Amino acid sequence: MFESAEVGHAIDKATFDAQVPALREALLEAQFELGQQARFPVLILIAGIEGAGKEETVRLLSEWMDPRFIEVSTFDQPTDEELTRPQAWRYWRQLPPKGKVGIYFGNWYDQMLQARVHKKIDEAQLDQFIAGAERLERMLSEEGTLIFKFWFHLSKRSMKERLETLKDDPLHSWQLGPLDWQQSKTYDKFVLHGERVLRRSSREYAPWYVIEGEDERYRSITVARILLEGLQCALEHKTPTVHAHHAAPLVSSLDNRALLDALDLSRTLTKQEYQEQLVVEQARLSKLIRDKRMRKHALITLFEGNDAAGKGGAIRRVAAALDPRLYRIVPIGSPTEEELSQPYLWRFWRHIPRRGKFTIFDRSWYGRVLVERVEELCSPADWLRAYGEINDFEEELTNAGVVVAKFWLAIDQETQLRRFREREATPFKRFKITAEDWRNREKWDAYCDAVGDMVDRTSTQISPWTLVEANDKRFARIKILRTINDALESAFGRL
Amino acid sequence: MFESAEVGHAIDKATFDAQVPALREALLEAQFELGQQARFPVLILIAGIEGAGKEETVRLLSEWMDPRFIEVSTFDQPTDEELTRPQAWRYWRQLPPKGKVGIYFGNWYDQMLQARVHKKIDEAQLDQFIAGAERLERMLSEEGTLIFKFWFHLSKRSMKERLETLKDDPLHSWQLGPLDWQQSKTYDKFVLHGERVLRRSSREYAPWYVIEGEDERYRSITVARILLEGLQCALEHKTPTVHAHHAAPLVSSLDNRALLDALDLSRTLTKQEYQEQLVVEQARLSKLIRDKRMRKHALITLFEGNDAAGKGGAIRRVAAALDPRLYRIVPIGSPTEEELSQPYLWRFWRHIPRRGKFTIFDRSWYGRVLVERVEELCSPADWLRAYGEINDFEEELTNAGVVVAKFWLAIDQETQLRRFREREATPFKRFKITAEDWRNREKWDAYCDAVGDMVDRTSTQISPWTLVEANDKRFARIKILRTINDALESAFGRL
Repeated sequence: MFESAEVGHAIDKATFDAQVPALREALLEAQFELGQQARFPVLILIAGIEGAGKEETVRLLSEWMDPRFIEVSTFDQPTDEELTRPQAWRYWRQLPPKGKVGIYFGNWYDQMLQARVHKKIDEAQLDQFIAGAERLERMLSEEGTLIFKFWFHLSKRSMKERLETLKDDPLHSWQLGPLDWQQSKTYDKFVLHGERVLRRSSREYAPWYVIEGEDERYRSITVARILLEGLQCALEHKTPTVHAHHAAPLVSSLDNRALLDALDLSRTLTKQEYQEQLVVEQARLSKLIRDKRMRKHALITLFEGNDAAGKGGAIRRVAAALDPRLYRIVPIGSPTEEELSQPYLWRFWRHIPRRGKFTIFDRSWYGRVLVERVEELCSPADWLRAYGEINDFEEELTNAGVVVAKFWLAIDQETQLRRFREREATPFKRFKITAEDWRNREKWDAYCDAVGDMVDRTSTQISPWTLVEANDKRFARIKILRTINDALESAFGRL
Repeated sequence: MFESAEVGHAIDKATFDAQVPALREALLEAQFELGQQARFPVLILIAGIEGAGKEETVRLLSEWMDPRFIEVSTFDQPTDEELTRPQAWRYWRQLPPKGKVGIYFGNWYDQMLQARVHKKIDEAQLDQFIAGAERLERMLSEEGTLIFKFWFHLSKRSMKERLETLKDDPLHSWQLGPLDWQQSKTYDKFVLHGERVLRRSSREYAPWYVIEGEDERYRSITVARILLEGLQCALEHKTPTVHAHHAAPLVSSLDNRALLDALDLSRTLTKQEYQEQLVVEQARLSKLIRDKRMRKHALITLFEGNDAAGKGGAIRRVAAALDPRLYRIVPIGSPTEEELSQPYLWRFWRHIPRRGKFTIFDRSWYGRVLVERVEELCSPADWLRAYGEINDFEEELTNAGVVVAKFWLAIDQETQLRRFREREATPFKRFKITAEDWRNREKWDAYCDAVGDMVDRTSTQISPWTLVEANDKRFARIKILRTINDALESAFGRL
């Protein structure tokens, strides 16, 4: 969930200076229109890692927009007034009215995360708080409020560096209280629980945006652009209320440093390395699957990737290690008539393996947020809510001991072209290439955006995505086998 | 929440026999249309008290409708197949496809309630299960499923009688396992936790219907009518999916034994009784409000009722007991411009008293489901979701120690007419009667339905409604004062 926010996004000063004037003007204009229409309020919730630029970004927004129509509220220590009333009272009294923008610092997410990190509440109680937040936000959204939730993120290393730098800077040291330092120590917990909170509370009507906080220019422009697009969408939408789902598109990276671009596709294995490691990893998998600890688990792997990225070959190398009675390969194509008459997750639920068994999905439920999104086979509302639904689904699986390993096989456009041509030239491979493959190729960028959003929103602690550098098929196959083996071992260790 | 299902609803045989043929025909027709359209599936969840006619009703439905397109599933003991997979798998494999009806017995609600009653899970974990059910049902609803949830209810006394009768009947005794008997002992727990489950999981897209189970004819016809109306609504709605909210109207009582009709409006107090008791109860209130245990509480009372039911007079008798610095009276009329620019609950949140204080709302947030519903000032979707939102709101209040006492002052139509005439005839009361009052009178039945639904869906253990027989003002005032005092004492005792 935080992978995209640890790749080192940055924007150079020239690009920044070139973009800011138009962005500021557009933001001011949208804000003016918001006030004129006075049809709905905007609520911005700020959360995330200390030192990731939360305060700075809000200060900048107030500078770029008209501060008379923005109210920033912080909720760290409750006042006497607030202490004597129900907890939610303080949030209600600060709500922005229609036509205005309210920014909430130290809001309910901060409260529940602090409480969880300091072990004042357990996991079930955290879930109670999350459910409460969901009910509140859904109600606000139904009443018309446009909600943005920003999580400012830093990798652990970046945070430490940043705290170190700030410590020596007398102008900045006031920013760092003892609590912050403590948070530096408890970074892992904060991120662990934070992910649970984001996973459960990122819903189509109030999605989370995870912003990498390291580069000030990048984070400023990214936040401003998300706000602008969301505002413009909602302002065009002329119904009396904004309602149930966020019109804002998920925003693709600004600096061409998307997660996929950060992959080093030049990684290879020699033939000999490959053969040696293949034997090792296949033997390891075969042994793990027959391990008696496997009786308490099941295994699901799923393969998504660019056309011609080598999914089939990789799946064969996995299967080759195993007794065919132990696994099933489920290819996902167009749904059958029966499947069409059910909710979209139904066709996957029917193939969930029993304990001790292994199911390999060749393409998967992620079709909803990939092909169905890009080809507009379902509405934006449908694929937007799918992220949350898929996270719920995978959580049910992992809670039941199912190990889920998800692979995206990435190749570059040149490699794909070469493979397409080879397929056309080889008689027994010709069936593998169709007119549709060439059409998909034209939507390369749209697919890249979809993959980025997918990984950002569904790569979770309980069920992470593995991005596989697949220009070299040998490298890809070994990485996949090794990842599956590591996942099983780690699950066995957990018992 | 269960009040309406304990008034002794019954339908005589003649009425039953007269209604059934047309109802069966309409149900069959709707079911046929459902199959023809094959646009959405119907899922019926059954829960409730043992012996309240769950099985019998389902059997009857299968008889009245075409059983080829109904699939009844029970989920008591998981099969071997099911035990080796994630819990939700068994529900997914039985889902009805588009065009068909699925009836789930012993579903997730049964599982979580049994677990809670037997203390296998605590309250926070129960909330986790409820939140899981909410996510599942919302997803199913977004995918088009029309969901009905029926809770079959019996009062404790009725249940005991029923179990006794069945015990001696050799034909029925097979129905009663040891678990059922145990449930008879744990009735209170079951109802307590059941109410929490219903309160949280009754949402506009999948509302609960509480059915009194005592009279077989009543419960059969009521269930059939709710199904029929819901089906017909959804079938007319020609969009590709049914979506987000239940088109079914809440159904008013069939046998004219609504909760309001069950009130004995002839109850009176003599002038002397009244004056004696007034002194006692006012003194009691005055003392309770100044009690030091009040420092941990606040008090909210709200008054709704028919026009001319005597709200103003009752409020004055309450206020008369108190130091004016301790309470505030908040009359709720048309919202101000400022209030209109906020979510509808905002205007009430601003008047939430601090601890130690008392706020009296003359009319309240229930306007949403009374006047706004009847006068069509908001959409059905808005007032349907309001029940859940209001329950959430009151739960936040009571969690913070606020005691909430809610009064509906009920008079009959003759008394209202007499009071209207008196007001017109009395110079200093003339301002109290307007053309609008006469117009409202014409909507008497619509208001009765709205009040019935309101009490059914928002009278909860944590914040019950008190229906006040108000034909006699003296009786009403004393009942109100006494109820407030009892509520405070009970809250103080709980500390």
